[in-house]
Amino acid sequence: MKAVRLHQFDESLKRKNLVEIDDVPEPVIQDHEDVIVRIGGAGLCRTDLHIIEGIWSKKVERPLPYILGHENAGWVHDVGDAVKNVKPGDPVIVHPLITDGICPECRRGEDMYCLNGRFSGITHDGGFAEFLLTKQRAVIKLDSALDPKDVAPYADAGLTAYRAARKAAETMKPGMSVAIIGFGGLGHIAAQVLRNLCAARIIILDTSEQALNLARECGFAHCLPGGDTAAANLRQLCQEGADAVIDFVGEKGTPEQCMAMLRKGGTYYVVGYGGMVRIPTIDMIFDELNIVGTLVGNYNELFELMILAARKQVKLATTTYRLDQVNEAMHDLIEGRLTGRAVLVP
Amino acid sequence: MKAVRLHQFDESLKRKNLVEIDDVPEPVIQDHEDVIVRIGGAGLCRTDLHIIEGIWSKKVERPLPYILGHENAGWVHDVGDAVKNVKPGDPVIVHPLITDGICPECRRGEDMYCLNGRFSGITHDGGFAEFLLTKQRAVIKLDSALDPKDVAPYADAGLTAYRAARKAAETMKPGMSVAIIGFGGLGHIAAQVLRNLCAARIIILDTSEQALNLARECGFAHCLPGGDTAAANLRQLCQEGADAVIDFVGEKGTPEQCMAMLRKGGTYYVVGYGGMVRIPTIDMIFDELNIVGTLVGNYNELFELMILAARKQVKLATTTYRLDQVNEAMHDLIEGRLTGRAVLVP
Amino acid sequence: MKAVRLHQFDESLKRKNLVEIDDVPEPVIQDHEDVIVRIGGAGLCRTDLHIIEGIWSKKVERPLPYILGHENAGWVHDVGDAVKNVKPGDPVIVHPLITDGICPECRRGEDMYCLNGRFSGITHDGGFAEFLLTKQRAVIKLDSALDPKDVAPYADAGLTAYRAARKAAETMKPGMSVAIIGFGGLGHIAAQVLRNLCAARIIILDTSEQALNLARECGFAHCLPGGDTAAANLRQLCQEGADAVIDFVGEKGTPEQCMAMLRKGGTYYVVGYGGMVRIPTIDMIFDELNIVGTLVGNYNELFELMILAARKQVKLATTTYRLDQVNEAMHDLIEGRLTGRAVLVP
Amino acid sequence: MKAVRLHQFDESLKRKNLVEIDDVPEPVIQDHEDVIVRIGGAGLCRTDLHIIEGIWSKKVERPLPYILGHENAGWVHDVGDAVKNVKPGDPVIVHPLITDGICPECRRGEDMYCLNGRFSGITHDGGFAEFLLTKQRAVIKLDSALDPKDVAPYADAGLTAYRAARKAAETMKPGMSVAIIGFGGLGHIAAQVLRNLCAARIIILDTSEQALNLARECGFAHCLPGGDTAAANLRQLCQEGADAVIDFVGEKGTPEQCMAMLRKGGTYYVVGYGGMVRIPTIDMIFDELNIVGTLVGNYNELFELMILAARKQVKLATTTYRLDQVNEAMHDLIEGRLTGRAVLVP
Repeated sequence: MKAVRLHQFDESLKRKNLVEIDDVPEPVIQDHEDVIVRIGGAGLCRTDLHIIEGIWSKKVERPLPYILGHENAGWVHDVGDAVKNVKPGDPVIVHPLITDGICPECRRGEDMYCLNGRFSGITHDGGFAEFLLTKQRAVIKLDSALDPKDVAPYADAGLTAYRAARKAAETMKPGMSVAIIGFGGLGHIAAQVLRNLCAARIIILDTSEQALNLARECGFAHCLPGGDTAAANLRQLCQEGADAVIDFVGEKGTPEQCMAMLRKGGTYYVVGYGGMVRIPTIDMIFDELNIVGTLVGNYNELFELMILAARKQVKLATTTYRLDQVNEAMHDLIEGRLTGRAVLVP
Repeated sequence: MKAVRLHQFDESLKRKNLVEIDDVPEPVIQDHEDVIVRIGGAGLCRTDLHIIEGIWSKKVERPLPYILGHENAGWVHDVGDAVKNVKPGDPVIVHPLITDGICPECRRGEDMYCLNGRFSGITHDGGFAEFLLTKQRAVIKLDSALDPKDVAPYADAGLTAYRAARKAAETMKPGMSVAIIGFGGLGHIAAQVLRNLCAARIIILDTSEQALNLARECGFAHCLPGGDTAAANLRQLCQEGADAVIDFVGEKGTPEQCMAMLRKGGTYYVVGYGGMVRIPTIDMIFDELNIVGTLVGNYNELFELMILAARKQVKLATTTYRLDQVNEAMHDLIEGRLTGRAVLVP
Repeated sequence: MKAVRLHQFDESLKRKNLVEIDDVPEPVIQDHEDVIVRIGGAGLCRTDLHIIEGIWSKKVERPLPYILGHENAGWVHDVGDAVKNVKPGDPVIVHPLITDGICPECRRGEDMYCLNGRFSGITHDGGFAEFLLTKQRAVIKLDSALDPKDVAPYADAGLTAYRAARKAAETMKPGMSVAIIGFGGLGHIAAQVLRNLCAARIIILDTSEQALNLARECGFAHCLPGGDTAAANLRQLCQEGADAVIDFVGEKGTPEQCMAMLRKGGTYYVVGYGGMVRIPTIDMIFDELNIVGTLVGNYNELFELMILAARKQVKLATTTYRLDQVNEAMHDLIEGRLTGRAVLVP
Repeated sequence: MKAVRLHQFDESLKRKNLVEIDDVPEPVIQDHEDVIVRIGGAGLCRTDLHIIEGIWSKKVERPLPYILGHENAGWVHDVGDAVKNVKPGDPVIVHPLITDGICPECRRGEDMYCLNGRFSGITHDGGFAEFLLTKQRAVIKLDSALDPKDVAPYADAGLTAYRAARKAAETMKPGMSVAIIGFGGLGHIAAQVLRNLCAARIIILDTSEQALNLARECGFAHCLPGGDTAAANLRQLCQEGADAVIDFVGEKGTPEQCMAMLRKGGTYYVVGYGGMVRIPTIDMIFDELNIVGTLVGNYNELFELMILAARKQVKLATTTYRLDQVNEAMHDLIEGRLTGRAVLVP
C-alpha cells in the first residue's frame, strides 16, 4: 500500500520533500484484539512538524523510517478473533494510543498514561497510509451522521483541546472567566467545547486580526488582541483577572502573558509547547496560582467529543489533500496558508 | 503596652537589633465586630525575616514602623457590640487575615482571598505585643485542652502546612506516594496532617541528617537524603515517581528536584519561596504535570487543624522567649539554633 | 404600610380570603447590618399555599399573624451603618435566608444551613408588603438589565431549580441523560439552567400535553408523557435509563416512577414534596442508586443565577398582580389558571 | 474436583444440608484471557445464605445446580495466551466480577457496572471448589506478606465495606462525624478503613454489647447501643447529628434510625439489605438529606484495600473450615456462632 514515511529529521523544515511516499506491505492481523482500519482521512498536525524537526526523538525512541499520522478515522477492514466492539465496515475514529487495559492507569480511565502504551504515528506506524493497524481498545464507532474524513483531526488536535477545555470547564461557574490564547485549530475547538460545557465568560486572545474575526463569526463576543498587551487587554474586561487561561501557543512569551492574566487562585493550562514556564516561587504562592500541563485526552474523552460532534455542537473546518500531496500540505501548514485543519485522504 | 515594631528594612539581617521594643497605646474597640485579644503567645516565622529583608514590601504596602507578628493566640480581652462567637475570657487562636465576609471570595469560604483583607503583622498591626486588635471573623475559640502559647504557630506556619497537605491528601489513594521536601517547622506539621488525612505512602526528604532522624523518631518510615540526588533517591523507592511532592523550601534547586520526582500526572505543591520555577512547556505537557501554589489556609482549615491539635493527632515543638528577647529569638532562627518554632510570650 | 398577613391556617384552601391585607408599621433599621428594601415585586409560590395549609407549622415555629412572601426584589431604601455592599437606590434581589455569616455552615458557603438563619416569609416577616427588613448578607445588587418585578421569583423558585440543576450538571458528561419531571415554574428554569451548564441530553416528562408543548417551544427536543408510563417512555429513548432524574413533583407516584427511570449508579433528585420515597434496600444497593434531597440554594448560587438571567440565558414568564389582588392570585394558582409565576407588585 | 453446589433453594434455611459436595470436572482454559486459580481460601458470606433463600434469583438468572463462592483467593494455576499481568504460581485475590474492559463503565473504572459482567458464585461458577475459572481483568497479585486464605473475605465483604467507607471518607473533614451501624464483618472493616482514610470522629453503634466491646478493643472510643434509641444516643454525643451514617444492617428499622441520625446535608449509606427505605419527600428536602446505595467495589478499590491489608492497616478475623464442612459453617453463620468471617479451605 501507499504510505507516507519519515526517513530523515530536518530541524529547519526547509526541504521540499519532508517525507516520502513509499510502497509498503499492508498490515495484517497478528493479535486477538487487532483491528485494521481502512483510512478515510488522516489529520496533519503541527506535532508532525515537531516530529520531523526531531523534537520528539529526544522524548521517545523510534527508528526511521516509519509511517506518520496520529489523527485517524476510517472504516474497519479486518478484526482479530477477540474483537467485540466493532465489525468490518463500521466507521470509526481511532484514539492515537494503543493501550493494554490492565495497568493501573488504564483501569482508572486515564489510558493515555498507559504504562505499555504505543502512540500511532509516533512510536508505532501511523495513518498516513491506506491501512492502519490498531487494537479494539483504540477504536470508537462513529455516529452515522459523521464522515471519517471530516472528523479525523478530532483524534488528537480535537481531543487535546477537549481535555484542556473539559478540565477548565469543571472549575467554572457562571460569573467566572476563561481566556483562550490562540484561536487556531485547537483553540477553535476548545472555545466551542467550553461554550457547551459551562456558562463562564469566554475570552479569545490572538495576535492575528484574521483569527479574531473568525472568532467573532463563530459567535464569541469577547475577542481581544494578544501579544505583549494581552494581559492588560484582558484586565480591562475583567479587572481581577481570569479564573482560567488555556494556552494553545506555549512559546514566544505566552507563558508569562498567561500568568499575568490570572486571578488569585487562577489556573494556567499549558497545551501548546516550545517555550519555557518561568515564575518566581513567591508569585506562585502569593496569588496561589496553578499551572496544569495537559496532554491528549483519554478514550472516554474522545467518546464524549464524538457525541458533541454528532450533534453539531462542535464543528471543525478542514481542507483535504490527496495522500501524495502530503509535502504540499506540510508546507502550506508551515507557511500559514491553511484554512482549518489539513486532512490527507488516501 | 510593649510592642515589637519594625522601623527599618535590613536585607542582610546582620543588625543586632532587627526590631525595637516600643511603648505604644493599647488598641481599643472601634467597630461593632472588633475583638481585642490579650496575647498568650505569638509565633516567630521565617516570613518575619523576609519582611525585615524587605521582600514583602514589593508585594504589599505598609508604612513603617508597625507591629510584627502574624501567628497569634491568647484570650479575648474586649469585644464590639456585634460580636457573637466569643466573649471576654475565651481562649482563642487568631487567623492572620481580617476579612469582610461579604465579598464573593469570603462567601465561598476562601476568605484568605478576601478582596478587602488585611493581614495581621503584614498590612495591619500584629501580635508581637501585649494586645492585638482583630475582628470576630478571625478568631476561633480553643478547646480547653489547648494552651494559647503552645498553638500560636499553627495560625500561619501550621495553617499553611495544613492547607498544602490537605490539598495533596484529597488526591491520594492507598498505593500512592507523597514526598515532603524539608522536615522543618512546616514540613513536620504537613507530614503529621497527611498521616491523619490519607493512607498514601509518605516520603520525607531533607538535606539535614538531623532532620531525617527527627522524622524517623516521629514514626516516618521513608526518610531520604535531599539535595542533588533527591529525585534519584526517591525513584529507588518508587520507580514511577511520586504522585505529589510538597516543597517547603522553594529555593536552592528544590523546584527542579521536585519536578524530577513526579510521576505522570503528578503535582508539585509550592509552599516555600525564594527561588524560581523553570520548566519547558513540553515537559509540562509530556507528563501532564501540575504545579500548585499554596498560601496560608482559610478560616475553616484553621478550625480543622485545631480539631487535630486538640486530639493530639498533630503535635508541635516550640521554644518560648519573652517579648523583649525577640532579637535573640530572630538571630537564633537565622543561625539555625532553634528547636521547633519560637514563640514570644508577653 | 400595606402588608399581606396570614391570620389562620386553612388545610382545605377553600376560603375566599386566605390572607388579609393589613395596615402595619413600616420596618425600621435596628441593627448595623440591616437593609430595608422597597419591594418591586414579590413572587407567589406553592410553598405559600403549603404554609397556609399548615404543613410548615409542623417543621418550624412562627406565631400568627405575620407577613408572607419569600421571593423578593426591589430597591434598597435604607441601610444600617455597617452595610457596605449596597446603598439606597440600588436594585436588589433578596435571598430568602437571613444568615449570621460566622457559623461553620456560613463559613463554607452553605449559608442556607445557617445555624441561626431566619427565612423571610416563613420564620420572619416576608415581602408581600411595601417594605421588607433584611440584612446585607441577603441582598445581591442587580445588573441594570434586570427589573426587580421580573426576577423576584428567582429568589426561591428559581434558586431551588438552579441548585438542583447545578448539582445534577456537575455529574453530567456528553452522552449522559438527565430527566426533568414536571415542566412547571421550577422545571422550566432547571431545564434552561441544565442547557447552559452541561451538554447532557435533557428529557422533559410531564403529564400535561400543554406543558410538553411549551417545552418543545423552548427548544427541548425530547419531551415525553409522564405518569404511569413515564419510566417505560424514557427507556424507549435511553434503554439503560437516565443518569439523573430531577423530580419537581415529589408526590402522586413520581418518586417510584423516578427510581424506575435510573441507570445503574444514577441519582434521583427530590425537589417537589408531598409524597413518600419508598424503596427496598436491596434495590438501592443492586443498582447502586442515589437519592439527593435538594433545598433552596445558597447566596452564591443566587448570584450565579442572576448572571445567567442578566445574559438572558435563563428566562422566566411572570404574571403581575397588585398587592391587594393576592387572594385572587392565590386562587388562580390553586385552580391552575396561572401562566408562569405570579408576582405581587405593591 | 470437589465443589460445593447449590441444587435447591430453601427460604427457611432449615435443611441440614443446604448445599452438596459434588465431583465436577476441573475448569480448563477456553479463552485468551482466562486464568485458572487454585483456591487457597473462599469466604462464606451472608449473601450465600440470601442466594440459598432465593432472594437473588429474583434479581438475576442462573440455572441450578452451580458452584457458590464469590470471595476467592489462591494461586494462579494456568493462564490463557493473552494473559500478561499474572503467571502460574502467583498468589492472587479474585475480584468477583468478570468484566469485558471495553464497555463505557469499564473504561471509566467502575467495572462492577460492566454491561457484560458475570459475578463468580452468582451468575458464574464460584470458588467453593478446588479450582476457579476467571479472567486476567479480575485477578490482583498479592503482596508476599499476605496468605490467600487470610484475605479471601476481602474480595467481597471487605471490598463492599471499603467502597462504602471510601465514599464517606471523601466527604469527611476533621470535626465531622461518621456513624457505623453494625460492627460485624463489614462494619469492622469499614471502621478500620475510615480510620486510615480520614480524620473524622468514628461512632460505632450496635445492638450487641459483645460487638461494642470488640469495637472498644479495636481502639474505637465512641461505641454506643444501637436499636430504637440509636439516634437519641448518637445525638447526645453530636447534637447536630452525624455527617454520614453507614448502615451494614439495612433492615429491622435501621433505615429509619439512620435517617434520624443525620445532620443537615448528611448522607445515609445503604450497604446492608433486607428492609425498606421509607421517608417523606418533605424530610428529604427540609434537611437536604442524601441516600447512597453502595455495592461491591471496583477492581481499583480492591487493589487499594490490598495495599492497606499488606501494611496491616486493616486486619480481618477469620475461622477456617474444610470444604466438606461447608454446611456446618453455614449453620454456624446462621446461628451466630461464628467469630470473624468463615473461610473454606479446599
